[in-house]
Amino acid sequence: MLDQSTICAISTSPGIGALAIIRLSGSESITIADKIFESPQKSKKLVDQPANTIHFGQLIHDGKIVDEVMVGIFKAPHSFTGENSVEISCHGSVFIQQKILEILVDNGARLALPGEFTQRAFLNGKMDLSQAEAVADVISSSNAAAHKLALNQMRGGFSKEISDLRDQLLHFTAMVELELDFSEEDVEFADRTELRKLTERIEELLRKLKDSFQLGNAIKNGIPVAIVGETNVGKSTLLNALLNEEKAIVSDIHGTTRDVIEDVVNIHGTAFRFFDTAGIRDTDDHIENLGIARSYSKLEQATVVLLVVDTHNPFDVVYGRINKIRKRITTGQTLIIVANKIDAGLPDTILKLESLELGDYEKIVFIAAKQKQNLDELIDYMIHSINIEATDQQDVIVTNARHFEILKNAHEAILRVLTGLDTGITGDFLAQDIRECLHYLAEITGEISTHEVLGHIFKNFCIGK
Amino acid sequence: MLDQSTICAISTSPGIGALAIIRLSGSESITIADKIFESPQKSKKLVDQPANTIHFGQLIHDGKIVDEVMVGIFKAPHSFTGENSVEISCHGSVFIQQKILEILVDNGARLALPGEFTQRAFLNGKMDLSQAEAVADVISSSNAAAHKLALNQMRGGFSKEISDLRDQLLHFTAMVELELDFSEEDVEFADRTELRKLTERIEELLRKLKDSFQLGNAIKNGIPVAIVGETNVGKSTLLNALLNEEKAIVSDIHGTTRDVIEDVVNIHGTAFRFFDTAGIRDTDDHIENLGIARSYSKLEQATVVLLVVDTHNPFDVVYGRINKIRKRITTGQTLIIVANKIDAGLPDTILKLESLELGDYEKIVFIAAKQKQNLDELIDYMIHSINIEATDQQDVIVTNARHFEILKNAHEAILRVLTGLDTGITGDFLAQDIRECLHYLAEITGEISTHEVLGHIFKNFCIGK
Repeated sequence: MLDQSTICAISTSPGIGALAIIRLSGSESITIADKIFESPQKSKKLVDQPANTIHFGQLIHDGKIVDEVMVGIFKAPHSFTGENSVEISCHGSVFIQQKILEILVDNGARLALPGEFTQRAFLNGKMDLSQAEAVADVISSSNAAAHKLALNQMRGGFSKEISDLRDQLLHFTAMVELELDFSEEDVEFADRTELRKLTERIEELLRKLKDSFQLGNAIKNGIPVAIVGETNVGKSTLLNALLNEEKAIVSDIHGTTRDVIEDVVNIHGTAFRFFDTAGIRDTDDHIENLGIARSYSKLEQATVVLLVVDTHNPFDVVYGRINKIRKRITTGQTLIIVANKIDAGLPDTILKLESLELGDYEKIVFIAAKQKQNLDELIDYMIHSINIEATDQQDVIVTNARHFEILKNAHEAILRVLTGLDTGITGDFLAQDIRECLHYLAEITGEISTHEVLGHIFKNFCIGK
Repeated sequence: MLDQSTICAISTSPGIGALAIIRLSGSESITIADKIFESPQKSKKLVDQPANTIHFGQLIHDGKIVDEVMVGIFKAPHSFTGENSVEISCHGSVFIQQKILEILVDNGARLALPGEFTQRAFLNGKMDLSQAEAVADVISSSNAAAHKLALNQMRGGFSKEISDLRDQLLHFTAMVELELDFSEEDVEFADRTELRKLTERIEELLRKLKDSFQLGNAIKNGIPVAIVGETNVGKSTLLNALLNEEKAIVSDIHGTTRDVIEDVVNIHGTAFRFFDTAGIRDTDDHIENLGIARSYSKLEQATVVLLVVDTHNPFDVVYGRINKIRKRITTGQTLIIVANKIDAGLPDTILKLESLELGDYEKIVFIAAKQKQNLDELIDYMIHSINIEATDQQDVIVTNARHFEILKNAHEAILRVLTGLDTGITGDFLAQDIRECLHYLAEITGEISTHEVLGHIFKNFCIGK
């Protein structure tokens, strides 16, 4: 079943660089490299060289030198793919890169498909599927938080969590089987209580993982932040100030979906995705409110809402605005009231805002955006509000939409078990839902996988990985 | 004088790739890498590892894993720069690449300047200056011919030519000194004839090198080709057919000058740069001819002129056009008459064109551009017309504008020697011109160089090379 051919690809970023890496993997990779490699000593053969060594020489094709290169040798199973592998480090001209690929193909290698190196690592048992998926996330991670999550997953953090879950589920199965053994002796088992406790623990674990996706996805793609407020309260000034904070990187982030998300800003290692909610105004005009409804729907997508108010206005006005937005805040959202222009604010307004009663998910911060005063405090609040520190602990956060879908299904299965326990269905039916749950988890790690699923996962990888 | 600090840079093309290489060079490079590297066995130290070996491990910063990497170790003097060097192969996320650079700088390395690795290779005697310059050309070479010239120069082909020239010049100096020894014995030496012969040989060598620049520059930047002809004779069809020939690559070529040259097409490994000469028409209208003059000035820049004529027209008309353009062809240019539409041509026109008398630098080819008939013959002519095969022999071709300028000066100096011999100036003066010549050649190889010259050369390199 496993494709035995030797594959090759340019593994470094496309384009001109000082150098580029062309990677070969497969049983014939060292033999193929040998056909075109010539060391200064001529007689040296790459196949005779020990693993994990680097060799200087020339690539020769049709008697002509193609480039001077360094060739790294890796031997099965101690390589990324688990196969014999070769890394050719050549001069980074596009012409040379293409030429070397051509020559490798002429000599028996074939061009690798996207992600095929990682897919082979998976198929050769070097990593499970969730780790393989994380490789793509590591490569595309554009901020510290996303990078940490992806690296943790690649290094098996997520796999361990799944394996713990499986252990619990297998324990559950053992319990059910025990109960089945006694099913004909119509008695109330002490085990039944324990069974329920165990089910609840599994349900909690699955729910925790499933729920972490919102945060995981936000970290991966940028925490959605809505900046709202009246015109002239300093929203644009605030956004610009945040953009300039510590040379924050403003960038288009090309996600795996190839969608371009705009206004993503890395601040202190966390990506924030700012929403345009310019349309939200405080008005009682019915017609105008209809148009504003659209903006509110965007507001709903935000994890953090920054409500900018102008302290130069009377407190009552400001308070009115705050209460208007408060009504729109839903569970899981954090409202940060940004009291702006404190350099020119009314003392009474500021004083009353300072003693404003705040809910559990509300913060207030006093800033002067133009003077970049107190921005650090605001950023701290933004970062804290999304509980980003969770990622500092070894907590596992789900970032992958495929995993999320599977976990949702697994969670539904376990909820059916709970209902089943309540309604007293037979152990057979309970066991079936558990098996379903186990099946789902096996899909995450790739113990159960189809060509279709693998194809779908790896087609989004870059070529050369 | 030699900067001893350890430098680091991303050496692969910027942007996201499957993997990226970060390079360190300098006496401390292995020690610095050791500070952040941790092998799975923990105790393994990179400084204890033999040269030219690769090691898997993690990069650790502030107790956190930054990435899983492969680290290659090179030891002085057996490395590209001649110094201790390290190549870190990491996941190709931009975030990770930047992070690793940051950490290396934190640990005592500094960011490398453009071309600084190659500059160190030069300063450490791993290559002469013309070889170092060729490294940049190898990287930017975008077609087979330019690549071959650059590779030949990088491998010392050009340096050998210069060294041969220097040998000749030193022999000349010996001859002059011999003459000086006898200068008071007012006799006509046999040596004098030999001196002249030797000077002529040196002059020829220098002229040959100097003159090769036109070809070298054309190969590097694309052979300038003008397609001229009346409207509707099939110029655009021809150009499009050439563009599609063997999946020819149409590309913007970013040269070292950072100018963008458009319509550069790689055909069979040679770059051709097509000129827009749409304005050239066959007319006697005085006013219109004034406008056409501008187009003619472009025609002058072409090495190859493709005159497209329509064989569907009577021979006299076609012949008139040919003679009109013939007048514009200057020395060094090749005129290829492209007799198009032979599938629908007049038999009489074709017959008469077939027996057309051609000059030394004229060719005629019969094609049907639309049907892509006989394009290979045309391409053969184009490639032959610029004597591209010269590069197939081990002939040295000058491609570098700095070398060209120096060779021009050296050639002028040797011409002064020749004049001096004719007018009978004293050996002292002859020797002075020879010394000047030697000085120039030393500038090419870098035996004589200034900070300013080096700075100018390496600033056009990419960072990481």
